[in-house]
Amino acid sequence: MTNQVTCIHAEPLRNYCAALFISVGMSKEEAFINADSLVDANLTGIDSHGVSRMAIYLKRIRDKVVNPVCSTKTINEAPAAASLDGGNSMGAVVAYQAMKLAITKAKDVGAAFVTVRHSNHFGTAAYFTKLALKHDMVGFAATNGPSRMAPWGGRDPYFGTNPFSVAVPAGKQLPIVVDMATSVVARGKIILAEKNGEKIPRGWGMNQGGEVTTIAREALEGSVLPFGGPKGSGIALLIDVLSGILAGAAFGTTLKDMYANFNEPTDTGHIFGAVDIRKFRDLANFKNDMDQMIRDIKENTPAKGVTKVFLPGEIELRKREARLKDGIPISQPVLAELKEEGRKCGVLFDLV
Amino acid sequence: MTNQVTCIHAEPLRNYCAALFISVGMSKEEAFINADSLVDANLTGIDSHGVSRMAIYLKRIRDKVVNPVCSTKTINEAPAAASLDGGNSMGAVVAYQAMKLAITKAKDVGAAFVTVRHSNHFGTAAYFTKLALKHDMVGFAATNGPSRMAPWGGRDPYFGTNPFSVAVPAGKQLPIVVDMATSVVARGKIILAEKNGEKIPRGWGMNQGGEVTTIAREALEGSVLPFGGPKGSGIALLIDVLSGILAGAAFGTTLKDMYANFNEPTDTGHIFGAVDIRKFRDLANFKNDMDQMIRDIKENTPAKGVTKVFLPGEIELRKREARLKDGIPISQPVLAELKEEGRKCGVLFDLV
Repeated sequence: MTNQVTCIHAEPLRNYCAALFISVGMSKEEAFINADSLVDANLTGIDSHGVSRMAIYLKRIRDKVVNPVCSTKTINEAPAAASLDGGNSMGAVVAYQAMKLAITKAKDVGAAFVTVRHSNHFGTAAYFTKLALKHDMVGFAATNGPSRMAPWGGRDPYFGTNPFSVAVPAGKQLPIVVDMATSVVARGKIILAEKNGEKIPRGWGMNQGGEVTTIAREALEGSVLPFGGPKGSGIALLIDVLSGILAGAAFGTTLKDMYANFNEPTDTGHIFGAVDIRKFRDLANFKNDMDQMIRDIKENTPAKGVTKVFLPGEIELRKREARLKDGIPISQPVLAELKEEGRKCGVLFDLV
Repeated sequence: MTNQVTCIHAEPLRNYCAALFISVGMSKEEAFINADSLVDANLTGIDSHGVSRMAIYLKRIRDKVVNPVCSTKTINEAPAAASLDGGNSMGAVVAYQAMKLAITKAKDVGAAFVTVRHSNHFGTAAYFTKLALKHDMVGFAATNGPSRMAPWGGRDPYFGTNPFSVAVPAGKQLPIVVDMATSVVARGKIILAEKNGEKIPRGWGMNQGGEVTTIAREALEGSVLPFGGPKGSGIALLIDVLSGILAGAAFGTTLKDMYANFNEPTDTGHIFGAVDIRKFRDLANFKNDMDQMIRDIKENTPAKGVTKVFLPGEIELRKREARLKDGIPISQPVLAELKEEGRKCGVLFDLV
């Protein structure tokens, strides 16, 4: 029963979510971007960042701690740089604007970074880096988040799980889309293990006493661990520097948790980058080499116990194709939540 | 006896190495950059990338597979982008020029990337990112290298251990200098374990059969493993894309190993980046926030078994201060090698 799902096609799901956003004061265009970014996460199989986030997004707008109307301001600007103030509106819309600006600037001068302060949770970073692909650019996105992870050597949560994504276009092959949190696993997996009464593997988390633990609840009260030990911790730090400090946003423990603090803006920070391949090299040659690398890697002999070698993002992009055709499996609790939000918003629930 | 070291001060060591480089046809200025980059690695404790590389660098110049005279050409250029051809000269000199160009461009437009093709081993990436610090910029550097590491899921070496570095200035605190290979450990540690007849921990390497091994020799014949599994592998791939393919350099298995192929240029590729903080935010505020983050992290409660929390690069920068004062411990085999190179080059060995 708990694993029962209903398959819903992307378009009606997106329309329903957009209608919910419009009902709380969002413009049609911005509602579409927010809904599309969530549904795209579901399409690629990242259900933790999909429409299951609707309830918290809508709650924060209703509680007036997130502004449904986007009024981004430019703080500083140069040909290859800009810093924006997101005005505490929806993360995905501000992020979309910032990424577009980075792409426009890169088209002019070859490369650009755009930072964002006073923003909120933006969904998956890959949604924004993929925007660069159709411009034949390399896209980069990163964000900080609420404290969940101690710096390497410490025990008190300080960094968020600070994810980043890089997307690279190819020729005939699928593009490369790297998207990763800097923790070993998403905290959601530890929450799930606790719900199911299961132990977690050593290396996922640490208890409040600063000891590695296999008890899920202890890890949730303590700290998740960075991937690759000091290396993942170093990357988490760099992301907090670039998306937090460079942007003039919150960083470390000053960033508010959207699930715990319903009175204050999160002041989340992001950074986006775009690199125009043509400014460095003939585009066709670049794409040929990308295809060659991708073929090389696919032809690598699988390691013991592995049946096939996948490229970063390949599983997600293939899942996207399948789910576009067959629909997105939505769990009963998430479906019930979406229905309840329709009731609260006065929007007809027409998904089943 | 094998652990016996001689402490040599940085200046005479640098002068001696520069004299060796000059003797094989290098200009005084370029000889200084090459020598300084190696000695800086020793100063920061990264002895694997220090003057122990003199013998191979000089051998390749003598064998005429590396050009001692740097004749870098610009292939493409835009305000925030450039791609250079290193003309198969010394990696550190080309890298120095490329990083300087990225800094100059970032000063104008806010951010810039510079790629390099037809280059060679450049030493430590941190040597170049640290150049950005005195300009109050964030510095970025990455390079590819000969195939040592299978892509995640595969067993045949394809990526180099592809390191990257990011340096970030602070105010009163030491700067942050992240510098890491994308393998779990440097291959040099596995070579050392084999020499000492020791087993290696599970997770460092894989044998040719694609199985994780604890036997050093098997790992050397097989593949080293990426840090954080698929995550480190994804980062290694991105570095091969940016420093190899975007630069128009070799990538994957087409890059030649400087220790194995003495007939062909390595065609190593690099990428450098600079971000001018002032274009995003008031510099003093940025530095205050950096100092705050660094203090926060230093004050984090140490995890079980840890006595002190260190920032990325802190141990290296402190070692640098100590070795500048007390001298650099050079092992007997490396000292003998340096002496032998003096004999070959007709340069008086005056270090002991």
